This record gives sequence, structure tokens and C-alpha cells, in this order.
Amino acid sequence: MSKKYVYFFGGGKADGNESMKNLLGGKGANLAEMAGHKDLRLPVPPGFTITTEVCTHYYKNRKTYPKELKSEVAKAMKKIEKLMDRNFGDPANPLLVSVRSGARRSMPGMMETVLNVGLTSKTIPGLIKQSGGNSRFVYDAYRRLIMMYSDVVMEKAAGIEPKDEQGIRKQLEKLMDQVKKQKGYKSDTDLTTEDLKKLCGQFKAKIKEVLKKDFPDEHNEQLWGGIGAVFASWNGKRAISYRKIEGIPDDWGTAVNVQTMVFGNMGSDSATGVAFTRNPGNGENQFYGEYLINAQGEDVVAGIRTPAPINEYSKSEHNKVLKTLEKAMPQIYKELYSYQKRLEKHYRDMQDIEFTIEKDRLFMLQCRVGKRNGPAAVRMAMDMLKEKLIKKEESVMRVTPSQLDELLHPIINPKMELAHKPLAKGLPAGPGGATGQIVFTAHEAVEWAKQGKKVILVREETNPEDVEGMRAAQAILTARGGMTSHAALVARGWGKCCIVGCGALHIDYAKKEMHADGKMLKEGDWITLNGTKGNVYEGKLAMMDASEENKLLNDFLKLCDSVKKLGVRTNADTPEDARKARQFGAEGIGLFRTEHMFYGKGSKEPLFRLRKMIVSKTLEERQKALNELFPYVKKDIKGTLEAMDGLPVVIRLLDPPLHEFVPRDEAKLDELAKDLNISREELSKRAEALHESNPMMGHRGVRLGITYPEISEMQIRATFEASAELLKEGKKPYPEIMVPVVCDVKELTDQLAIAKKVYQQVLDKYNIKKIKHMFGTMIEIPRASLVANELAEVAEFFSYGTNDMTQMGFGFSRDDIGGFVPDYIQKGILPGDPFQSIDQKGIGELIKIGIERGRKTRKNLEVGICGEHGGDPASVEFCHKVGMNYVSCSPFRVPIARLAAAQAVLKEKK
Amino acid sequence: MSKKYVYFFGGGKADGNESMKNLLGGKGANLAEMAGHKDLRLPVPPGFTITTEVCTHYYKNRKTYPKELKSEVAKAMKKIEKLMDRNFGDPANPLLVSVRSGARRSMPGMMETVLNVGLTSKTIPGLIKQSGGNSRFVYDAYRRLIMMYSDVVMEKAAGIEPKDEQGIRKQLEKLMDQVKKQKGYKSDTDLTTEDLKKLCGQFKAKIKEVLKKDFPDEHNEQLWGGIGAVFASWNGKRAISYRKIEGIPDDWGTAVNVQTMVFGNMGSDSATGVAFTRNPGNGENQFYGEYLINAQGEDVVAGIRTPAPINEYSKSEHNKVLKTLEKAMPQIYKELYSYQKRLEKHYRDMQDIEFTIEKDRLFMLQCRVGKRNGPAAVRMAMDMLKEKLIKKEESVMRVTPSQLDELLHPIINPKMELAHKPLAKGLPAGPGGATGQIVFTAHEAVEWAKQGKKVILVREETNPEDVEGMRAAQAILTARGGMTSHAALVARGWGKCCIVGCGALHIDYAKKEMHADGKMLKEGDWITLNGTKGNVYEGKLAMMDASEENKLLNDFLKLCDSVKKLGVRTNADTPEDARKARQFGAEGIGLFRTEHMFYGKGSKEPLFRLRKMIVSKTLEERQKALNELFPYVKKDIKGTLEAMDGLPVVIRLLDPPLHEFVPRDEAKLDELAKDLNISREELSKRAEALHESNPMMGHRGVRLGITYPEISEMQIRATFEASAELLKEGKKPYPEIMVPVVCDVKELTDQLAIAKKVYQQVLDKYNIKKIKHMFGTMIEIPRASLVANELAEVAEFFSYGTNDMTQMGFGFSRDDIGGFVPDYIQKGILPGDPFQSIDQKGIGELIKIGIERGRKTRKNLEVGICGEHGGDPASVEFCHKVGMNYVSCSPFRVPIARLAAAQAVLKEKK
Repeated sequence: MSKKYVYFFGGGKADGNESMKNLLGGKGANLAEMAGHKDLRLPVPPGFTITTEVCTHYYKNRKTYPKELKSEVAKAMKKIEKLMDRNFGDPANPLLVSVRSGARRSMPGMMETVLNVGLTSKTIPGLIKQSGGNSRFVYDAYRRLIMMYSDVVMEKAAGIEPKDEQGIRKQLEKLMDQVKKQKGYKSDTDLTTEDLKKLCGQFKAKIKEVLKKDFPDEHNEQLWGGIGAVFASWNGKRAISYRKIEGIPDDWGTAVNVQTMVFGNMGSDSATGVAFTRNPGNGENQFYGEYLINAQGEDVVAGIRTPAPINEYSKSEHNKVLKTLEKAMPQIYKELYSYQKRLEKHYRDMQDIEFTIEKDRLFMLQCRVGKRNGPAAVRMAMDMLKEKLIKKEESVMRVTPSQLDELLHPIINPKMELAHKPLAKGLPAGPGGATGQIVFTAHEAVEWAKQGKKVILVREETNPEDVEGMRAAQAILTARGGMTSHAALVARGWGKCCIVGCGALHIDYAKKEMHADGKMLKEGDWITLNGTKGNVYEGKLAMMDASEENKLLNDFLKLCDSVKKLGVRTNADTPEDARKARQFGAEGIGLFRTEHMFYGKGSKEPLFRLRKMIVSKTLEERQKALNELFPYVKKDIKGTLEAMDGLPVVIRLLDPPLHEFVPRDEAKLDELAKDLNISREELSKRAEALHESNPMMGHRGVRLGITYPEISEMQIRATFEASAELLKEGKKPYPEIMVPVVCDVKELTDQLAIAKKVYQQVLDKYNIKKIKHMFGTMIEIPRASLVANELAEVAEFFSYGTNDMTQMGFGFSRDDIGGFVPDYIQKGILPGDPFQSIDQKGIGELIKIGIERGRKTRKNLEVGICGEHGGDPASVEFCHKVGMNYVSCSPFRVPIARLAAAQAVLKEKK
Repeated sequence: MSKKYVYFFGGGKADGNESMKNLLGGKGANLAEMAGHKDLRLPVPPGFTITTEVCTHYYKNRKTYPKELKSEVAKAMKKIEKLMDRNFGDPANPLLVSVRSGARRSMPGMMETVLNVGLTSKTIPGLIKQSGGNSRFVYDAYRRLIMMYSDVVMEKAAGIEPKDEQGIRKQLEKLMDQVKKQKGYKSDTDLTTEDLKKLCGQFKAKIKEVLKKDFPDEHNEQLWGGIGAVFASWNGKRAISYRKIEGIPDDWGTAVNVQTMVFGNMGSDSATGVAFTRNPGNGENQFYGEYLINAQGEDVVAGIRTPAPINEYSKSEHNKVLKTLEKAMPQIYKELYSYQKRLEKHYRDMQDIEFTIEKDRLFMLQCRVGKRNGPAAVRMAMDMLKEKLIKKEESVMRVTPSQLDELLHPIINPKMELAHKPLAKGLPAGPGGATGQIVFTAHEAVEWAKQGKKVILVREETNPEDVEGMRAAQAILTARGGMTSHAALVARGWGKCCIVGCGALHIDYAKKEMHADGKMLKEGDWITLNGTKGNVYEGKLAMMDASEENKLLNDFLKLCDSVKKLGVRTNADTPEDARKARQFGAEGIGLFRTEHMFYGKGSKEPLFRLRKMIVSKTLEERQKALNELFPYVKKDIKGTLEAMDGLPVVIRLLDPPLHEFVPRDEAKLDELAKDLNISREELSKRAEALHESNPMMGHRGVRLGITYPEISEMQIRATFEASAELLKEGKKPYPEIMVPVVCDVKELTDQLAIAKKVYQQVLDKYNIKKIKHMFGTMIEIPRASLVANELAEVAEFFSYGTNDMTQMGFGFSRDDIGGFVPDYIQKGILPGDPFQSIDQKGIGELIKIGIERGRKTRKNLEVGICGEHGGDPASVEFCHKVGMNYVSCSPFRVPIARLAAAQAVLKEKK
């Protein structure tokens, strides 16, 4: 059987259907489905699709077509003519067609399109007749064809590389601009029929002059020129590089869609519009859309005229005075309404529909799954489930993690945001929106906030001393730092809006001002941040709360829970965080950082005492400072264990390099020296001794616990005593003690000995028999993964610290990647920032090796992740695939992780 | 068949032999071999060994013996009595025995020994008779027995933990000291028979008082007490912790050796001595040794009397006036001479022999493989091969890498060194010895050296600006830094003596003085360094050259080459280094660091221009500086390729973070600012911008090549142009271009595109067809190993940078490990510094994964190592095992790597 190269659609029939995307491309398959499926049979402008196989043939055979193509196309054209009752090239009643590309996967803007094909000096009068004498419409269509065709078909066929400024299109545009200038016109629509007529003549002369060829005045020449241009554009420079980036194989090829042109701008009995089967802004099950009488699709987009609502439901402040389609063309509206119902039922999801009415005749141009915001996504998922339109698994898949994220934070009113240009752009480090007055120091942030002001803390970068100010601020904006800089980590943990690494910002602390985009802003000036996008706006933009649908959200997340297999825990460092996370559905704490309790409390006591401990020189000095610290540590641990009553809490022993805590502030240094009864000089010396060339790979984590066992001992004692007291109070504490920065099992053995000793002492002191607990390790050093079989001999659980694993696995210091990672991403060397989403190929491989080896030793080893990646959907899916028991993320990411975990199960089933 | 628990030896027979080490322990098996093997049958004092199985039984059965033991011991004692013609406990002619431990593997000093067992009030007269009336000898033997037995057997049996100061031994020593003090004696030997007799009485009384027990006056009680004490000492605290460190299983147990006591101090017809079958100082095949008439082994060691030479050959300056054994006891000497011949032939290696002559009767007490220095080891290996005593493979195994190292550097005269106490100790960073005058700055090192002075450069730590001074100095001594600090790396590369991390040193640059061990040394004072041991001595110690045996050394190394499979290349950064390494036998260059050519040349031009390039801000500035640098880079590459003509040279593109090259010196900063025509402030700003939190994981290596492709381009062009010019001159250049710090194949693809472009340009420019070369990658980032299959698609070779791999694999910054790694090693968490010898378990695993995956993609992938580990014998063995093609190390380590590579083959065969 010889191959079929042309697939017809229209008149309630189609040769193809939706399942034939590989052969017909996405657009072609969808048009066939709409036109021909027995449940739909919509009035699609008839046309046909030339298959992707023709494209493959074209490139395999020195750019020639299969010999059968010509006749198949001619046959299909005949069918169109019959259905439309017009003839291609007929001077009296001409048929015009569009020629469009359509690959398997959408490649927006990468390939060519030619409209109005078939319009020639011979057919112009016929079209004028069809349009009821609208010559201006016809000459405008003609000049569009000339411009498009000369650019897309003729110039490229001549082998001329389109140099933007000298391209034929630009030259034609110049001619048009001259006319507008001469006549004082503001817009293209001011051009009269005569102007356009004259311009078309000038255009053709110019084309002849530049391209040494006549503009084709023959309809079939135009058609084949268009078809050839589409196939040629598959191997255009832009398309090739787009495919490289997106990983689309070169041999897929594109299909070509030839379709009847219909016009919504043929008069007051014509119109064009866009509609959604449900409201994409809130998800309500109501038909929603806009239309314009006597207009083309472009006119709706251009926004020169205000589109009218299609029905009462679609009315808004802006358009409520305009006549609805339902009133203006009741019959057409009824038809459209029934089509949209059919479409949603058929596709089982909300559809975004384009339609055109040409002289009282409705045509359906396109339908596709409609975009929607977060609240709408959740509502539709739940409603369609209730309506039994979709199943549970589909419902879970209908909300994307980023849509869910929208529900969890206040956001800038989208309309306001559209109307403003960002002042600067940075990295989106903390989600949501925030507006406030600029302050440049943490101290001022606290003071201003006390006076009830809303502030945004703007810093070069932040450090632990800024934490109080960060908490007091609505949002944080830094000029330096990456997605895992101090500011980003802290803000994300709090779910606070934050933008970091905003390089365009120039801050002058002394003058209390900042510069960006040529503007100067002072302390007290208002700015607004979109932390989800990384945009900084000047002024005070209106905010809105997206989380109104809370009941629905909870129902949706429960649905997710019923599907997911991964546990979802949270990273929380305080009892308050723990409580908040529990509300968000956390099933335990995956990371409680004992050092974080020293940051930014109302009382500075713990931090001060920690610093004392750090600069201690003798065991005695250090022990004394540790004894002073003990009650604070115990209190926070107790509060957290209590908040998580019955659920596991992973308590990590001291992790960061000590020098991080050394104050830089002169007054604080004085105070510290005084308290330690040493000179400032001596203090400086001690602080200096803590300096390291590469602190990230220095004296930190368990290395501190080995050299200063008394530090581990204090923290372990605090954990067990807090647990013992809770047990006495009838609670069910469940601590998991986690040793960080481990690279060898002997480090664990060493720390376990301390834990065992302290455990027995605490049991004796409180006269109790047992405290339920586990002893385990963080896996963040590459070597740890490789010797995981040995680690699992001692560790009862592993928790992957993927931040550090990424740092050391890549050799990327997260504080220093600003110098090259942006270039890496831009050049396509890295697909994205590996600190945002786990690098599955490299770091993921290390994780897999570790889990495999660990479970070989200890079958029931508990494995989780506590890095920042725990809240990233792609990373959650990875964690599911490699068989982890849980992920842990910041409280505000918990719902997202629950969704991602459920989706991971469903994707795996596929 | 019931088990045999007691193995007899003596009288030319033995129940056991050397192969029974597991059962009889090392000592017992060796005594059996000497006594009973048909080729030996030496006059070993008869005795027996109680097997290690008895020890196991003892601990399994509540510290009891198998019931057969008693009778087997009695039977063996009878045999001894018969051979010695003395009886145990016989008042007239008593037999005395020693009771010693003996495990499978030697555990020196960890277990107990009791001598003179069988000496009681009843047998004293008989021993006096045997000794020819030497009462003093007998009472001295008795007091030794009492002291030893009360400590080893009685106190421990009483369950008293020996507290050093209050232990019974200390108390007895105090009694002896009192007597010496009363009588004004200086030495134990001044004690008279009467003193000793009295002391023995006081000892027994003290024992009764303290331990509430009588000292046993019954020979069998003494014997079984001794046996029990040895078994008990297997589980002594010291022994247990020694086993833990050495990895000796607890259930091996120890054997007990009971052996006839013989005395070299029974009069002028008695003697004791030590001899070697060949000269251990130079390897000559001559019998060599010392002896003392009327003395015990301890006396030889104590050094109170000068031992005499055993023959003419053994005479030295110190002892040439003394009578040789050959002259004094010609018959005995003849007998001894024949035994040593027999022993060497039997054991097929140089033996270290202990002998005792008791009343004209020769006894052989011990023989073992003799220790020897480097030159001797090489000579013996080659001589024995020629003598056909050993085979080629054995010859290669007879020299240890550290013995070979001795031959490659001048050393401190060992005798001089013995006579001095080190002033301070540091890390042995560069081998050999050196003596010179202290200078504290690189500048002065250069100036003083110009004046012909020998200097040692003493610095807190060094940086690239010090390199000229380091070259000018005899040796380098730093107070800070580890084995891979700047000073250590540079010095090792040059084979220069160097000690780093000498923490006891306090340097005052301002005063030009340093303090150590309570002493103050000034600029110009002499010090001497032993860089192999890390010892610093005050003053000028005499040096000697150990490499006189060069012909022999070369022959030996050729022997190694005929066995080894690994290639041995060198790390060299200059044409001079390359030439030197080729002399040492390097088969190519495994690492040529393009950045190192900027360090410490006579002319400062290249470094200055490099700095210009680094602080350039625009592409134009940078390109200009690169153009200026180009001729220098090309010249050095050309010189090196020429020196290695025909052999491969791996040229690594720029690796370190740029800020490393920024000068710190004010004058240089001024000069730089002036040349760049920018202000000092601007220069500081630019330098500051290069600052990184963790430079080791920052903007370096290929990351520079990606962000500044012009840097890679310049280096690649220099390489190809240098090659092209050499080709024109009829040479055979073979560069391998290596990209460092790679973590993803796309980095390689990016750099390969540059290389291909430049390659074609150079071919065109020089009008040649081809330059033999390879393009490959360094593997030093953990992720690189994991994605090695992808890297090998582009890379034609891998070279492991194990320094960085160790840093990132462990998360150990080599500059910062001083804070915790010493504790890690001391606590046994790490077996040693992983920067010295590859961590085979973790980092080695990464290497294995990388090789496996790389070769899966590219079967003939060339794999080597270029980290500092390439010169470490254990690491070389590892590289052989994992199938690398070559190792590369600093020129002075090349011979050692050749040896280690050969030994690796032989060890594998085993």
C-alpha cells in the first residue's frame, strides 16, 4: 500500500485524529479531532495536513517532494472548495487559505506561517464581493500577504540571510512608515483603501528591485511557495537551536497545515473571540470569554478596542456596558455554548477556545487545554472530580506545584503587575509578593517595624546578625548571593518573600540610598517585590490573598495524601515553625538545626553565649559557656518535640564552621571580650585563628564533635533531658539524633559512644526505662555515599543533605557560583541551578549508590532528604523514585511536597 | 587424635617449623626452624612453645588450661633437662628458663616476659657453682627475677592496676636507689654482692607488705606464674588497644615460649654479641658484628662499654684497638661464621643474629631479616641476584620505596643526628637533609644566596611571591600549612628539603628572630633540617651524599622497569624539570601546569603580565594582556615539548582561582595600577571582586575557560604553535591538552570547539598537515567520575587529580585540615593523611567508578593520575590494580614510582 501524504479535515469528517500527532503534528491532529471525532464534529474551517513524513522525504531527497503529493494536495483542495463553495484562484468567488507549520511538539515562533494565500490581482475583486464591498479590508489583506510572503518565502528562497535591518520586510515597513508620516497617521488603521492600494504597488516594485523577482500573482505558485517555506523553516537556524535546547530530534520533521481562511473582520455580521469552558481566574464552572465584532484575532490581542463579554457571567467593570454575544448573536452564542460543552466533555478538561464568525457563520479555529491560575486549578480539579468528569488520579495531576505555590502566599495583584515595568530583576528566592518601605539595616528594620511600618530590608547580602531585621521585614532584597545564600535560605524557611542576587542594584549604605535602572531610591521609599518571579517594582503595588480557597485546598491535599507514598516532613528550627508546619501537614521534622536557635531571637542571650563558647580557648572556658547555653538549647528542643508530639524530630548536631558566629560588630566584640575577661587583641587573635581558606570544607559538623566532644555531649544531653521531661508529662517525644558532615563510620562510632553514655545518665537521672529515639547520620559528603554500607552499621537512618552534596559533588561553592553558573546556564552547559533542583545524573547517582549500599547493610534503613531540594517538585519525584522514606522541606513548601509526592506515584504508574 | 599443646625444640630437633606461625607464634616458629630444620640445626638453647590454642582455650574456659597441658609441659621440661644436663629446681645444678610471649604478628613491648625463672633460695648455690663462684652475678640475677616477677606476675594476679608511681616495681626501685644513694654509687654495677643479697631480702619483705603474699620460692610455682602472666597480658589494656589499631583479631591469642636461660656474663669465657650476615650500612657481602666479653645483651645496648668488632672487617675508628672475636675465641668465631653462612643461605636474605657464649659454648638466640639502609638494600638486592641466591622478582621486592628515597637526597650524617635533640618537629614535606643560615624573607634568601651563602628560608607560610627565594634556599621551613600547602607542593616538586606546619615555631618578622623550645634564633643563625623525618636541629650538622651507588641504582631501576606494567611520568612545569625527570626515567609528562611558569623566574615579566590579565575588566584589556603573555607561555611549552621529544606531555589549561595571583605587596600593586592606567582604588576594587568564600570550589579551571574563552584559546594556541615549530625543526612533539575542574561533558564540548578552531588555524599558518595530539580531561570533581561515560565521549584521556578529588570527596580543605585531621589520626578515625596516600575505600571507589564508566564508552581510554599521590608507593599500587596506564609524580619521585609499580605487579601475582 502506498503511503498517504495528505490528511483532509472538515465538514464533520477527518482522515486523521488526535492520536496521530507523530504523523500530523500537534496542530494537525487536533484540527482533525475537532473536525472529525464523532462526539465533536465542529465547524472547523476545512483544510488538510501534509504529513511529517513528507518533511523527512524532503530532507532526504535534496528538498523534493514525493511524486504523489501534488495530486493528493489538488484532490484535497477540491474537497475544500466543495465544502466552502468557493474555488481557489476563482476571480468571482475565491477561496483563500493559510499555510502553517505543526510539529509533534509545539515550537512557538520557530517556524513560518503564510496567511491569505490565493489572493492575487485576479481574485481581489471576488474577495471584495465576498466581503460585501469592503475594499479596504481586501487591500489590507493583500498588503499583509505581500509583506509576509516576500519575507518568509521569497527572501529565504533567494538564499539571503535575513539581516534584520536590511531584510525585505524592514524595507517594506519603511515604505509604509513613509506614507503614515506624510499623511500624519498614527496607526495602520488610519491607512485608507487608496493608501493601501498604492502601497501594494510600491511593495511589489521594491520586491522586484531587491529580490530580482516578481511577487507571484498565481494562486498555486503562492500555495507551493508557502508549503516549501514551512518545510524549509524546519531547518532554520532558530528552529535548530531551539530543538537542541529542548532535545527534539531533527528527524521528527514538521507537518504543514493548509486551511481555509475565515475572516472575523468582514463586517458587523462577523466577529472573533476567545473563550474558556470554565473561568480560568477562579475555576468556577461557568462559560467565560470575550469577543470583538468586525475584528481579527490580532485586534483582540492588540487591545485597541475593548473586547465585549460573551455573556452576563463574563462581564467586568471594564466591559459591562458592552453588548454580550449572547444578546448580539443569540443563535451563534447558543451554538458556541453547545460546542464548548462538547469540547470539555470530550477532552475532560477546561478548554481555551478560539472562534471566528464570518458573515453569521461560526467557525471553531482552535481548542486547547486552558491555562489557569492556582486557585482555579485546585477548584477545577476538585469540581471535575465531584462531577465525575475525571478520576482521583487525574484530579491530582491537574494542579501543578507552581499553581499550588500561588495559593500559599499573598501575591501582587496581577493586573497591577502587568501595568508596571520592573525596576530590576534578581533571583526568586522567597515566594509571593510584598510591598514596603526601604530600610538598609537590620536594626532599622526592627525599629521601623515596631512603629507599625511595613519595611523591606535591602542589603548587599545578609548574615546571621541580620536575622532579627529579616524577620521584622515584609521581604528581603539583596544585591549579591545565590539561591542558597543566607538570605535565600532563611527567607524560604519562613516562606517570606525574598529576592537575592539582584546585580543591577547599587547600594550606598552611607548615603542610605540605592540605584537601579538609572533611578535613585532612598530609605523610606516604597518598593514592591514579586519573589516568585524575582521582579522589583518601584512604588506600592496592590496585593491580594490567593489562599481564600483553604477548605478546598485541604481537601485537595488530602486527596494527594491518599495517593503519595513518600512521607513529608519539614525543616523547622523553632517550636513556632514546627506548629506551623504541622498545620501544613508535616508528618515530622526532617531537620532541626541546633545552631539556628541562636539566630535572631528577641533575647540575644543564646547567640552571645554561643559566641563565648566559640572563642573559648580552654576546655574549662568552653565547658562553662556550654553549661550556660544548655538551658536555651534544651528549651527549644523541648518546645519542638512537644509541638511535634508523637512524630519524629531529626535533631542535627552543630553543623556550620564556628567562625560564622563570630560577631563583626565592634560593640559586640567589646562586650564579648569583656565577658570573657580577655583583651580585644586576644579576642581578635582567637577569632583570626578560626579563619579558614575554604570554611565549607573545614572544621565543621562532626569534626567539631570529634575535636570538642563536649559540644556534642551538651546537645545530646539537652535532647534526652527534654525528652525525659516530656515523657514525665505524658507526651510522646521521638527524637532522631543526626550527626552532620560525616565521611567515615568511625566518626559515628565516636559520637555514638557519647550518645550512649549521656543516654544512660539521663535515664538514671529521671528514673525512666527508655526514650524512643534513633541515631543516624546526614549524608552530604560524597565519600559518605561511597562508604554507606559501613555507615549503616552504626546509623539507623540516613538523611541526605543535598545542598552540601551538590557543593562538593560539583565542586561548586554556593557562595561563589555567581561568577560562572549564570554563564553555564546561558550557554546550556547546565540545564539550571543544581542548588534548586537535584542534579539527577551526577548527585542523584551518588544518592542512589548511598541508598543501595546503606540498605545492603541495614534493610530497614530510614532514608530521607533534608536539603533545600526537599521542596522542589522534580527533586521530590526523584526521591520517590530512588526509594526514600520521606522528604523534608521548609514549612511553606510542605503542601507542594505533598502534591509532588502524589504526582510522582502517578507518573511512575504511567 | 587429641591436640598437641606443647612443641619442643633443641638438640638439633624441633616439633614445629617456620610455617607454623599461627599455632606457635612468630618467635616460637622461628626458634623451631633454627633448631630443627635439617639445613640449620643450630645450637639454640632448648625449650618449648605452648601453642596459641592454649591461649584461646584459656579465655574460653574461665582462664583455665586444657588438662593435658600440665603433663606435656613436664615432659618437655624433662627433655630440656636431659639436653642441658641440668635439672629444673636442682640445688646442685639448676636449670633456669625464660618465659616469653609470641603472637602471630610481633606486638613489641605489648606483652610480658619473665627471665631467670627457677632461681630460688634452694638453687642459688647451684648457680653460683655453675658460674664458677660468681655470687654477684647470681644475686644480681635473683634481684632481677624478683623485680620482674613481682611486677608482671604477682601484682597483676592480685588484680591491682599498675599505677606507675605506686606500682610494686617502683617501690622496689626506690629501695635500690636508697642503697645507691647511701653508698654514693653511680651505677647499678657498683652494687656489691652483699648489697644485692641485702636488697633481695628487703625486696621480699616489701612484696609481702604490699601484695600480702610471699615471693614464691618454688621453681614450678614460678614457672606457672610466668606462663599465666603471659596469657593474661594478651588481654592487657595496652595489648588490646594495640590490636585495635593494628587490626589484629582478639581471637588469635599468643603462644608462650619457655626456653633455657644462657648467660654471656658468667666470666671471661662468656660473651654476647650481635652480627649481620652482610654489612647493613653499605650492603657489602661481609660478615659484620660486635660483641662484648662477660656481658649480657642489655649491656651491648646500654653502651657503657664499647663493644669489640667480631673480625677485621668490622673494625671502625672507635673500636679498632679492641680484640676481635676471631682472635679472642677463634674456634667459636669459626663456628659462628659457619652458622651465619648457613642462615643466609637458608633464609635467602641478610640476617641479623643474636648470639651468646656461655662458658665457651656458643648459643644462637635469635635470627631475623636484618634492617639495612637504602644503599645497602640496593646493593644486596643486586648482589644476591648475581649470586643467584634470589630471583629477579625477589630482588625487586628487597628494596622498599623509603630505602630508595634515601638514595635520592643528601642526608644528615646519621651519627651526627643521633647525637642531637631536635629543636622542633614539623611535617616532612620535602625529603633529605639540609643545613643553612636562617633568613626570613624570600628577598633575603635570594640576596644571601647571591653572596654564596647557604640559607634556609623560614616563613609562617609561603605564597607564589616567595618562589624565587624558595629556589635560592637550601631548604624551606614553615610554621603553618599541611602536606599539600604551597611550600610543600613546590619543594616536593623540586625534590628540595622542606618542613611545614612546624607549630612550635614562633616567628617575629619584625625582629628577624624565631623562638622554639625556649630558644631564640636570629637571622644568620645556622639550623639543619631532616626533611624526611620533619626534624629541625639547631646548628650546622654534617651532611652526606647517599646517592654514590648510582650505577647500581640504575641497574636496579632497569630491573624494576622489566617487571612493571604502569607507565611512570612526571609532573614538570619547566624545560629544566623535564630534562631532570627524563634522567630519572620519566616516560613523559603527566602534568605540565601552564600557570606554574609564572612562578619565580629570574624575570618577573610573565607573572606581571598574568596579573594584568587577571585584573582586566574588559575583553579588550584581557586580550591585550593575553597577547603579551603568549610568547612566554609558548616558549616554556616549546622548551618542555622539546626536552620530552617523542614522549607525551600533558598540558593542563589554567587551573587555580585567579585571585591566587593577585599581588599583596604594595609596591607591586602600585606598579600594576600604573601599567593598567587605573587608580589603586580601582585596582583594589577589582582584586576584591575576585575574592571568594571557598575559592577551591569557586571560579577556576574550565570555569575560567568557559567564562573567558580567550584564556583557553591563548594557551591552546601556544601549545599548537610550539608543536608546529618543533615539527618544522624535525622534532616529534606530542602534546595532550588537558581541561581541569571538569564536572560535565558540555564543558569539554565547549573547550574542544576552541581547540579545533585554533588547531586548524595553526595548521594553516604553518602549512602542515597534522600535529599528533590528544584532547582530554582531568578528573578531580566527584561528579566527573559519576558521569565519566559521557566525558569519555569527548575526552581521549582521563587524568585523575587526586588532590582535589580528596578535598571534595572528603569535604576536606587541604589548607584547613590542620584543625581536625591530627585529632582524627590520633583517635584512629583516619589511618593517615588522605592527601599523602589515596583513601582507597572512598576516593579509590570514585576512581574505580570513573575508569569503569569511562572505558565503557571508550575502550582504549588512556587513564593516569597526576595528583601528589602519584609518587606514593601504596597509591601507585592502587593505580596499578585499578588498571591505569600511568602514574605521574614529581621528578624526584620517579624512581620510587618505578619501584612501586614493579612491586605492585609482584604483589598482585601473590
